Amino acid sequence: MATTSFKEKIKGIGGNPSYEVKARVLRGHLEAKIPQGLQLPLALLEDPPLDVTHIPETCGLLTAQELAITELDATAVCQKIAADELTAVEAVTAFGKRAAIAHQLTGCLTDFFLDEGIEQARQLDEYFKKEGKVIGPLHGLPISVKVSVSSPNMQSSILNPRRPQAHYRIKGTVGFAGFLVNVETSTEDCDMTSILRSLGAVFYVKTNQPQSIMHLESKSCYSRVLNPHNTDLTAGGSSGGESALVAMKGSCMGIGTDGGGSIRCPSAHCGIYGIRPSSRTTPSHGTLWYQHGQDGVFPSTGPMCRSARDMRLFLEAVLGANPSHRDPDALPIPLKVPDLTQKKLRVGIMMHDGVVMPHPPTIRALKFLKEKLEASSEVEVVNYTPYDHDRGYSIIRELYYEDGGATVRHILEESGEDMHPLTEWVISPPYVKNHDAAQIWKLRDLRDTYRREYSDHWWSQNVDVVVCPPFQGTASPHDTTRYWSYTAIWNLLDYPGAVFPTGLVADTAIDLYLESPSPMSAADEYNISLYDAAIFKGAPVSLQTVSRKFNDGLVLAAQDLIERILQS
Amino acid sequence: MATTSFKEKIKGIGGNPSYEVKARVLRGHLEAKIPQGLQLPLALLEDPPLDVTHIPETCGLLTAQELAITELDATAVCQKIAADELTAVEAVTAFGKRAAIAHQLTGCLTDFFLDEGIEQARQLDEYFKKEGKVIGPLHGLPISVKVSVSSPNMQSSILNPRRPQAHYRIKGTVGFAGFLVNVETSTEDCDMTSILRSLGAVFYVKTNQPQSIMHLESKSCYSRVLNPHNTDLTAGGSSGGESALVAMKGSCMGIGTDGGGSIRCPSAHCGIYGIRPSSRTTPSHGTLWYQHGQDGVFPSTGPMCRSARDMRLFLEAVLGANPSHRDPDALPIPLKVPDLTQKKLRVGIMMHDGVVMPHPPTIRALKFLKEKLEASSEVEVVNYTPYDHDRGYSIIRELYYEDGGATVRHILEESGEDMHPLTEWVISPPYVKNHDAAQIWKLRDLRDTYRREYSDHWWSQNVDVVVCPPFQGTASPHDTTRYWSYTAIWNLLDYPGAVFPTGLVADTAIDLYLESPSPMSAADEYNISLYDAAIFKGAPVSLQTVSRKFNDGLVLAAQDLIERILQS
Repeated sequence: MATTSFKEKIKGIGGNPSYEVKARVLRGHLEAKIPQGLQLPLALLEDPPLDVTHIPETCGLLTAQELAITELDATAVCQKIAADELTAVEAVTAFGKRAAIAHQLTGCLTDFFLDEGIEQARQLDEYFKKEGKVIGPLHGLPISVKVSVSSPNMQSSILNPRRPQAHYRIKGTVGFAGFLVNVETSTEDCDMTSILRSLGAVFYVKTNQPQSIMHLESKSCYSRVLNPHNTDLTAGGSSGGESALVAMKGSCMGIGTDGGGSIRCPSAHCGIYGIRPSSRTTPSHGTLWYQHGQDGVFPSTGPMCRSARDMRLFLEAVLGANPSHRDPDALPIPLKVPDLTQKKLRVGIMMHDGVVMPHPPTIRALKFLKEKLEASSEVEVVNYTPYDHDRGYSIIRELYYEDGGATVRHILEESGEDMHPLTEWVISPPYVKNHDAAQIWKLRDLRDTYRREYSDHWWSQNVDVVVCPPFQGTASPHDTTRYWSYTAIWNLLDYPGAVFPTGLVADTAIDLYLESPSPMSAADEYNISLYDAAIFKGAPVSLQTVSRKFNDGLVLAAQDLIERILQS
Repeated sequence: MATTSFKEKIKGIGGNPSYEVKARVLRGHLEAKIPQGLQLPLALLEDPPLDVTHIPETCGLLTAQELAITELDATAVCQKIAADELTAVEAVTAFGKRAAIAHQLTGCLTDFFLDEGIEQARQLDEYFKKEGKVIGPLHGLPISVKVSVSSPNMQSSILNPRRPQAHYRIKGTVGFAGFLVNVETSTEDCDMTSILRSLGAVFYVKTNQPQSIMHLESKSCYSRVLNPHNTDLTAGGSSGGESALVAMKGSCMGIGTDGGGSIRCPSAHCGIYGIRPSSRTTPSHGTLWYQHGQDGVFPSTGPMCRSARDMRLFLEAVLGANPSHRDPDALPIPLKVPDLTQKKLRVGIMMHDGVVMPHPPTIRALKFLKEKLEASSEVEVVNYTPYDHDRGYSIIRELYYEDGGATVRHILEESGEDMHPLTEWVISPPYVKNHDAAQIWKLRDLRDTYRREYSDHWWSQNVDVVVCPPFQGTASPHDTTRYWSYTAIWNLLDYPGAVFPTGLVADTAIDLYLESPSPMSAADEYNISLYDAAIFKGAPVSLQTVSRKFNDGLVLAAQDLIERILQS
């Protein structure tokens, strides 16, 4: 197998000459923002090791104190700042510097504005000094945010911004909705960044996502995001910039969006934590997107982080700010984290979805966890049978592009951006087709019928939560991810799900097919063909905890318990 | 003006000969179910008075005890049964007999199955005797239910039932979704009737609704529903059968649905109480409908009754049964009824919507209430300015029929049912047009944008609730209702709203235009042209209390307070 150079591997999406001119300017602006003092040696970047996670510690660009700060999770950062043991400026400086290093090794950023972050942190420190208290529960916490942001007006002259539309607007900075053509200068914060800002969060970077924001990988006009544990593998997507950055410890709290797995897949692939809350409970108004009004399934916004407790910190803080006050589409459903010492938690184990068998490392991890749980007196373990996941997956795929992908094709043509093969795949028949009004109603009725049947099925299984694979294996080789159902099925159902690292990694020696597998489906055949133990070396193995719609608090509580049993 | 005969006035929708045969059978079945002993004298039915509300008391068909029982509101019925002062059989018998009388005078029913109701009540009485307690909070309460129900299989042979689809299924009975062609024999309860049944409710009648379920009047293949206070006027729609029945005291608790005003308009027109809860909080799964999957706006289901406390009784009981357990589309948002003694309620008064000026009786009632409120120390009164209601109304009209009305036309053609002029109106351009996928997204984006702007506007007005007209006047003459915005605007926004009688009625002597009104719009010109004080004689004048989405409990609390001040 010919080895691809690192430079080639990390390269962004190409296009026609006019596109290339614009893309070069975009990338140049970003490169220019990485301070010289944080640039890694060219020799290292020519041929870095496959596992780049240790480079921040060994490269000599960070002080011991900075390295220590970046080891903290978000809860610890907030606690230390509130206890006057750490300043907001120290925190954002440490994470910001490490983010710059992470970016050079993984392509995780689309903007870097540490100076603004430090200024914001300085004001928070002043407030703390003057008032003797924090401004909010996230006082001084540096938070990385999905999708390109930069200084006001910088790129508007070159990039023909269209109607403002896409993820996580931050006032005065630039964002994009998955395509070069829709880069925009935001004139205001979206609800999420506005709420986080009011809670005391500090912004310093925005992170990469794929073309169309609809791949479970992350290659955009900026760059391709590489998995820090093995750069031959994807960091996942669409919040792949976040997962790579958090895994590199260039952030302890990132914000992603998830419409088909875009928080959970990248979190799983990079060995971090991430939760997709029930949709419309967390703020989503004002994020950037290119199909406004497409309301057949709602994406959800949530945290990506390095500890289970950080998911709770985030959700409690954000929901505590009452997003439905400003957003008429947000649901004021309280987060109730139950006390699991009162009643034995019933955990369903779903080994596979009946369509695609996960690769050996994932099956090994699931069996390992199952044994641990079975040995515990704190939970009751049952086998969970999936309910027609193939049908559900085909419904959600059809829902994503009810116009048959016409909007996407038009957007790409407008700027001359090459269509990535995974974009072509996601907007192509048989699932994706053009619909008239009656066909859209019919499709949405199929969705509702499936949801109802699934709800009945769930109750028949007598479980509180289900533990299942978050993906049909560990992180994939680049440009190969074509099956989303391990996460997307829960999007269709709108069941909250959290992913967590098991602590296991793919092992070339033991993760082998014991016998030649018999495919359950065409998708399974494809998945089997992707497997070669050597390729996945070092990839973290993660699992997913799911519960019924709006039982987000139960997912958090179950997650804590499962993790405690796993580590016992 | 030629006087229409009563028989002509109450007649249902016609059609081609094949339709007429089927409709005759339907109507015949219903007529045959009214026991002979409850039939009013033919002479009376030849030419009843315009106001028929007193006939149940004077006709001699009800005993003094039955008349006394039917004076009770639902809360009192439940209390008396629980206190062993009344049996469930006595309750349903009294309301059932009065319902049969009401039907002959108003055309309010589509099915009558008192025998089944009595049998259900008998079992509940037995349970109570044996267990010494009620089975649930609605133990023994007779509840009337919107839309045709009858005995199993009765009509399936003649009516070519299509795929089951429409309001309030009750197991073993027949229902219809607004057209003769979709009469069906239901094989199971919908969620609402199933939950009500489990709470102890007793079913005995189903009530009429208009063709298409999309008029604010109620003329169907069965009959036209007449306003009991003045049969030259409509009882409102689409839950017009319920409003006429409850106003006639043939029911103390009816269930309606509201997608554009269908609970509030008929309640207002007949001088009863009704609340449209925030959508998807109350059960709606399994109701009959003909455009499944049409999810641009959601109808809401709620009570129609004779006291403000009954609205609370219903919502607390139904929400307490946790509808989201079985319905994945239901929202588990708790009903919080605030204590208004702690903080002064800010009441916004909206005299008109800036598009259509209500008729003199409504303006008189609103001014009367405003003066009362201003004189009270318990509330703070402010003027509420509407926000671009014309835009909102045009959006929701477009959302109702995204297929340009093709489904409705097809359904009518299938059975040869005549298209009612109000059906033609509601599916016609300019608002209604066919949409492709991108146009549907665009429309829904317009909806979301309007909702967001309205939310900002609401906060800028500094109000807790708004009191406004529920309609551009009192009940209208038949076949004239073409402006829904006083209710439909709140459907688009999904703001809960309750209507309540002011105790005032339209008065020929004083409800006059003092000067010739200048129309604000074409719709206003039409509304002015409809007004002649003599026509509206005796019509109840009602008002509407509205609050922000999910503030259903605040609407209930405000309603109580406003009513107390009104009656002081």
